[in-house]
Amino acid sequence: MKKLVLAISAFLPAMWASAAPYAVQHVEPMNWWVGMKWSDLQVMVHGEKIAELEPALSYPGVRIAGVERTDNPNFLFVNLKIGATTKPGELKLQFKRGKDVVTTVPYRLEARRKDSAARRGFDSGDAVYLIVPDRFSNGNPANDDAGMREKSDRRDPNGRHGGDLAGMQAQLDYIRGLGFTMIWPTPLLENNQQAYSYHGYALTDYYRIDPRFGSNEDYRNYVAAANARGIGVIQDIVVNHIGTGHWWMQDMPSSDWINHGKTFVKTNNQHTVAQDIHAAPEDKARFVDGWFDTSMPDVNQKNRLVARYLIQNTLWWVEYANLSGIREDTYSYADPAFLNDWNRAVRAEYPNLNVVGEEMDDRPYMVAYWQKGVVNGDGFRSELPTVMDFPLVDTAPKALTAPEDSGQGLIKIYETIAADYLYADPLKLMVFPDNHDRPRALAQVDGNIDLLKTDLILMATTRGIPQMFYGTEMLIQGPKERVDGVLRADMPGGWAGDKVDAFAGTGLTEAQRGMQHLVRTLFNWRKTSSAVKTGKLTHYLPGDGHYVYFRHDGRQTVMVVLNKNPQDTQLDLSRFAGMVKDARQGRNVLTGAAVDLRAPLAVPAMTSVVVEW
Amino acid sequence: MKKLVLAISAFLPAMWASAAPYAVQHVEPMNWWVGMKWSDLQVMVHGEKIAELEPALSYPGVRIAGVERTDNPNFLFVNLKIGATTKPGELKLQFKRGKDVVTTVPYRLEARRKDSAARRGFDSGDAVYLIVPDRFSNGNPANDDAGMREKSDRRDPNGRHGGDLAGMQAQLDYIRGLGFTMIWPTPLLENNQQAYSYHGYALTDYYRIDPRFGSNEDYRNYVAAANARGIGVIQDIVVNHIGTGHWWMQDMPSSDWINHGKTFVKTNNQHTVAQDIHAAPEDKARFVDGWFDTSMPDVNQKNRLVARYLIQNTLWWVEYANLSGIREDTYSYADPAFLNDWNRAVRAEYPNLNVVGEEMDDRPYMVAYWQKGVVNGDGFRSELPTVMDFPLVDTAPKALTAPEDSGQGLIKIYETIAADYLYADPLKLMVFPDNHDRPRALAQVDGNIDLLKTDLILMATTRGIPQMFYGTEMLIQGPKERVDGVLRADMPGGWAGDKVDAFAGTGLTEAQRGMQHLVRTLFNWRKTSSAVKTGKLTHYLPGDGHYVYFRHDGRQTVMVVLNKNPQDTQLDLSRFAGMVKDARQGRNVLTGAAVDLRAPLAVPAMTSVVVEW
Repeated sequence: MKKLVLAISAFLPAMWASAAPYAVQHVEPMNWWVGMKWSDLQVMVHGEKIAELEPALSYPGVRIAGVERTDNPNFLFVNLKIGATTKPGELKLQFKRGKDVVTTVPYRLEARRKDSAARRGFDSGDAVYLIVPDRFSNGNPANDDAGMREKSDRRDPNGRHGGDLAGMQAQLDYIRGLGFTMIWPTPLLENNQQAYSYHGYALTDYYRIDPRFGSNEDYRNYVAAANARGIGVIQDIVVNHIGTGHWWMQDMPSSDWINHGKTFVKTNNQHTVAQDIHAAPEDKARFVDGWFDTSMPDVNQKNRLVARYLIQNTLWWVEYANLSGIREDTYSYADPAFLNDWNRAVRAEYPNLNVVGEEMDDRPYMVAYWQKGVVNGDGFRSELPTVMDFPLVDTAPKALTAPEDSGQGLIKIYETIAADYLYADPLKLMVFPDNHDRPRALAQVDGNIDLLKTDLILMATTRGIPQMFYGTEMLIQGPKERVDGVLRADMPGGWAGDKVDAFAGTGLTEAQRGMQHLVRTLFNWRKTSSAVKTGKLTHYLPGDGHYVYFRHDGRQTVMVVLNKNPQDTQLDLSRFAGMVKDARQGRNVLTGAAVDLRAPLAVPAMTSVVVEW
Repeated sequence: MKKLVLAISAFLPAMWASAAPYAVQHVEPMNWWVGMKWSDLQVMVHGEKIAELEPALSYPGVRIAGVERTDNPNFLFVNLKIGATTKPGELKLQFKRGKDVVTTVPYRLEARRKDSAARRGFDSGDAVYLIVPDRFSNGNPANDDAGMREKSDRRDPNGRHGGDLAGMQAQLDYIRGLGFTMIWPTPLLENNQQAYSYHGYALTDYYRIDPRFGSNEDYRNYVAAANARGIGVIQDIVVNHIGTGHWWMQDMPSSDWINHGKTFVKTNNQHTVAQDIHAAPEDKARFVDGWFDTSMPDVNQKNRLVARYLIQNTLWWVEYANLSGIREDTYSYADPAFLNDWNRAVRAEYPNLNVVGEEMDDRPYMVAYWQKGVVNGDGFRSELPTVMDFPLVDTAPKALTAPEDSGQGLIKIYETIAADYLYADPLKLMVFPDNHDRPRALAQVDGNIDLLKTDLILMATTRGIPQMFYGTEMLIQGPKERVDGVLRADMPGGWAGDKVDAFAGTGLTEAQRGMQHLVRTLFNWRKTSSAVKTGKLTHYLPGDGHYVYFRHDGRQTVMVVLNKNPQDTQLDLSRFAGMVKDARQGRNVLTGAAVDLRAPLAVPAMTSVVVEW
């Protein structure tokens, strides 16, 4: 299987120029598995005039259920029906003109991993470490260019810097040591674009890891190495758009495969139209069907061939790479009916796998709209289990830096969380101080490391699935406004010759060591805390520069005091008698010190406190 | 009935001092009606040691179903059961010790008005004119003090100015002329407080019109006079709190009648706790049970005697005064379970009567929480039909004054309305440029009359039930920050000797005449427009300083162009082809001019345009 893929993909540009009739250029998915729920497989076959031929095969338990053609004769969609008891092996997919076999493609049906369907996904018991692969660690300088259009240039903040899977794999123990149990790398698929290819969201091949990161096999090995350390991998999937360098743009599978064909028509970026019962149909269409950017044509998921292609692609990666979760990009920009079908297909195949979708909006009702279980006023019922808590991400740094007497302080964090009734399951929210699309959290709190720590403590202890962006522990800051290439800075120590090495712990400032220590203490402790992972949240109206909340599950209670006071304070615990109950002593999670719960709690200046008992 | 009320109420302070045992001081409600759904009536009887006695009566179709006593022997609650076929008349309510009748109180059962139960309420076909009675028109200077504690002083912005029902009645034709079909006066009940009594929200008698406004009979006559002009009256009801001058505060019906007894414990004003699934129980209780202000003790609706008292009081006023609707003050501050019972009781008695509740919050999900039909994530299902669109009220002036290129312009109005999917019925929203609790709309748009007009056009033509605050048509402005006594300014012409008279139209500036003309044109036209009253809303993403939306119902289409451009513009209508369809000509609603719908629309500088066809 792998050989075929490489043979096809690596020489495509040359093949286009001199495409021989009936020479098969793409077969996607490149293989499948026996024993999948998704046993009605649609194989896209691409080759000059291939649609003039008829497919045939002979393999026990597999038959051709039908063929679909589009208005482009270079594409043929072959519908295979794979029986429940079909054995793994390689079948020969023949393409015939009448009785003559014009060409033959081998097609493998693999055996599934044991318990593949029952794999567990990520949940509030996990903590997620987010990596931009190009910027994390360059384990293999030899693949920095790999014959791709854009060459490596570390001096260019918007260029490729050479990070790769080899580097990521080398640093797995570091991430494990910090206490994280999941890694979410931004997209690793081929982005053979002329520029800005490092971010990975302009993919040019749905089935190929970008060779500057490594091979498909390298990716699979990386996931296995992570799994061996108790870490799962969440793949960042993009169904909304592709890159202009995608091979489809040279030979469209159908004239309605891409919205607006090859013409750039920008999305209006108006997220509200998705749920707006008054929105003009033209505005709705423009949001969902417009291109995300000049370099990112919009995929038409309303075309059922496209929809099936995308669903199969997602299932393929989960099964191939042994994923623990999916992060779906630009969620609301895609067709909502398709998104539901896609989620249902993923869940049908992997009932416990979690999917998190990105709706980047600071209004909780806008985000909640997309969570499965929410009964929306417009009738839409989403199938997406996890949404990202952008309202809290947006609020937290503003609230931490605002004067308390402005009415914009800790009360705003409290009020954002008070809106949780809008969600079907707040424990399934992904919470984070920042990610790859925000100014660094440290920049947002004006470089105040104490406030960054408080922000991180909030995200690690409030309800939800915490996610931390790589380099937060190294105090990467950057500007307060969003500058993508800069905020996605190189991780110190990821490149040979780096004087500061986060991984080895060398060359770090006192402050960086302190931050790494906090992260390590916090997230390793979190693994042990049932109350923080799945307990109830009870919070108290903030006052006196404190926001106090409890996580509790009957077995354990955790008290969190988010604190902004520039001087030491004493916190009277009698107000929280309903939570403290008859407990006498707790443990300060971050210092290990014993805490007398019958006395006022000493809260040091600018320090947030976590106590468990 | 009326005589008894006056006999009891007028001399109460004196009676307290020398209350004779068993002398009945209060009987509430003072009467009831036969043929009501609410036929299980609970009569509160107040008198020194009255609880020592047993009630008795003899009247066909009425019996005493039970008696309830509290920890205050001066109160007796007599449960009457009124049969379905009981005839109107006066019964004698006897209070006995053993076989001796100690005292007797006459009690009338009145006949209901024909079709009382079927009365129609207010809806999006109406337009509501909001009056602060003390500040609108002083029709009877003789009642300015009326023996109440606070005396009239027009020089004091927070004092009483003398407006009354006689004045309101004299100006009914003026209001009719402006095109309004409903009047909402702020509370008219007795507020016998030492200070700040003019606003009416610190009521001291649930069954008595403040004598500085007139008598109960005057109120009933006022409603009848309004009804005769096709205008309904919405009563402003306060179940959450009373004034410290209420007679209950001298002799509490029970020790749990008022939350926190006689001790001032302020509400935390934290609206979010109502729906917050994480809120500490202590914070929830403090919001609902805390006092609204030092002068406003919090009524404990969780006490079922209190609940029944309040429900009956509301039904009494609807039936007595012939109301067309209810406005319920500080909605979320009261007990939610009680509020639902109260709504159900009102609707059971008057299926078509509308009730609007005040949740003063600028977040649409906070307001939507309280609308009947919304499925809330915390399980709460409200019974309140109409909520106030504070999110739009808050947004509109900010959006109108912000530069369009700031991202805070018309798009914010569009986005607020885009959140309508959160409501069960957006047509039932009450919309308004301002009310008695906001800085004047003109102040909020920095005195720009063109923008005020646009604000009013928005409220008159978007979905919902428009409400205008008295004096908007006179360009009352005041400061941009909220100063209650000032924004509730005297209506020019309401006092003898006023040089400017809104009602007579004398002494007005050109600008005031222009504003009155707009109001008159807009709301009288609105009565004729089925599309604006009940049609669908379709709006388009704002651009070029225009926010364009349509109201349409198949019979009529109305196009509204909210416009902020400081220069004349031409609006290309081809973008709205889906709405304009094959219409060729429309009519400019505000100028009467014909409009060619096949050509660009001329939009004059700073002028919003309404076109119908």
